[in-house]
Amino acid sequence: MRVIADLCLVPIGVGVSVSKQIAACERVLSEAGLKTKLHAYGTNIEGEWDDVFAAIKRCHEVVHAMGAPRISSNLRFGTRTDRQQTMEEKIQSVEQKRPW
Amino acid sequence: MRVIADLCLVPIGVGVSVSKQIAACERVLSEAGLKTKLHAYGTNIEGEWDDVFAAIKRCHEVVHAMGAPRISSNLRFGTRTDRQQTMEEKIQSVEQKRPW
Amino acid sequence: MRVIADLCLVPIGVGVSVSKQIAACERVLSEAGLKTKLHAYGTNIEGEWDDVFAAIKRCHEVVHAMGAPRISSNLRFGTRTDRQQTMEEKIQSVEQKRPW
Amino acid sequence: MRVIADLCLVPIGVGVSVSKQIAACERVLSEAGLKTKLHAYGTNIEGEWDDVFAAIKRCHEVVHAMGAPRISSNLRFGTRTDRQQTMEEKIQSVEQKRPW
Repeated sequence: MRVIADLCLVPIGVGVSVSKQIAACERVLSEAGLKTKLHAYGTNIEGEWDDVFAAIKRCHEVVHAMGAPRISSNLRFGTRTDRQQTMEEKIQSVEQKRPW
Repeated sequence: MRVIADLCLVPIGVGVSVSKQIAACERVLSEAGLKTKLHAYGTNIEGEWDDVFAAIKRCHEVVHAMGAPRISSNLRFGTRTDRQQTMEEKIQSVEQKRPW
Repeated sequence: MRVIADLCLVPIGVGVSVSKQIAACERVLSEAGLKTKLHAYGTNIEGEWDDVFAAIKRCHEVVHAMGAPRISSNLRFGTRTDRQQTMEEKIQSVEQKRPW
Repeated sequence: MRVIADLCLVPIGVGVSVSKQIAACERVLSEAGLKTKLHAYGTNIEGEWDDVFAAIKRCHEVVHAMGAPRISSNLRFGTRTDRQQTMEEKIQSVEQKRPW
């Protein structure tokens, strides 16, 4: 089962800057061989379900190991059985509807 | 690693009522032996990371098998290494701060 | 336009415990006359759109005033035009599908 | 109060394709003069709090007017008082931590 997900991970108890932890997650996701795209409020992730969720678990482990005592994440994730669709195709399908 | 999560699963392409699919997810989570609590915009889930995420995968599989061609879920999930905390304790820790 | 929402507000830069801030938000929502229900990963809120979102803005203002330099919130919110539905009715409509 | 938000709006009861409605929301946000950036699981939005939330309300109104009887949205939104930060700066601050 393919999944397109979007992860927003918030380390708690490490102060006001969290970019170091987000960069570490990017690295985890990339090393897992997943297709990812960072945006201003999360990271798009595309891959097989088990690979995506194993990498997300690893993100929590790594951010805890970096010293964060607490993490609160928000994940959007979508699956479909009618057809395959990549992250790029999702964006294109919206862009094609722009008549303006 | 213990996790407290909150799942909001939205089947797409099955019409306007989605309660049948949510009830099926409740059953999946319950049969997985997880502690759960339904609320008006999702379901609280507490358990070991692997158990929680295996059950969430099963929810997507079951809702697709019920006929939904597409599912979009939103999941909040939190882990902590400083101490263990149950769903009830999270609620109590807020309620104890009510001075009003 | 009625809305049923679910707010999960995370203050950043105030340390590992955030229950004091969540309790303050509860008070803001309650003083706004909104129907609310705290759960283990957020707060259900029901009311008119403008009242709900004015109160959510006030939550951010109050939590900043309490000293949080940064806040990251997650909000689920649903509207419908086919019929009115309360928070209790949403829960009941799932519970009625439980055949197990 | 400036806010950086990320909106994922899901029309329910309009079938499996929702790109037409997402494109209409893009237009609403753009016509409101907000800075936006579409990604594979939502749309980044930056602006003044009242402008951003007025436009999000308008998105729900427009998507209902297009025929969707029900909408379920997920919104992440962040505010900070320690300093101003744009969407581009959020991304750059993560990219600068990439040592790999």
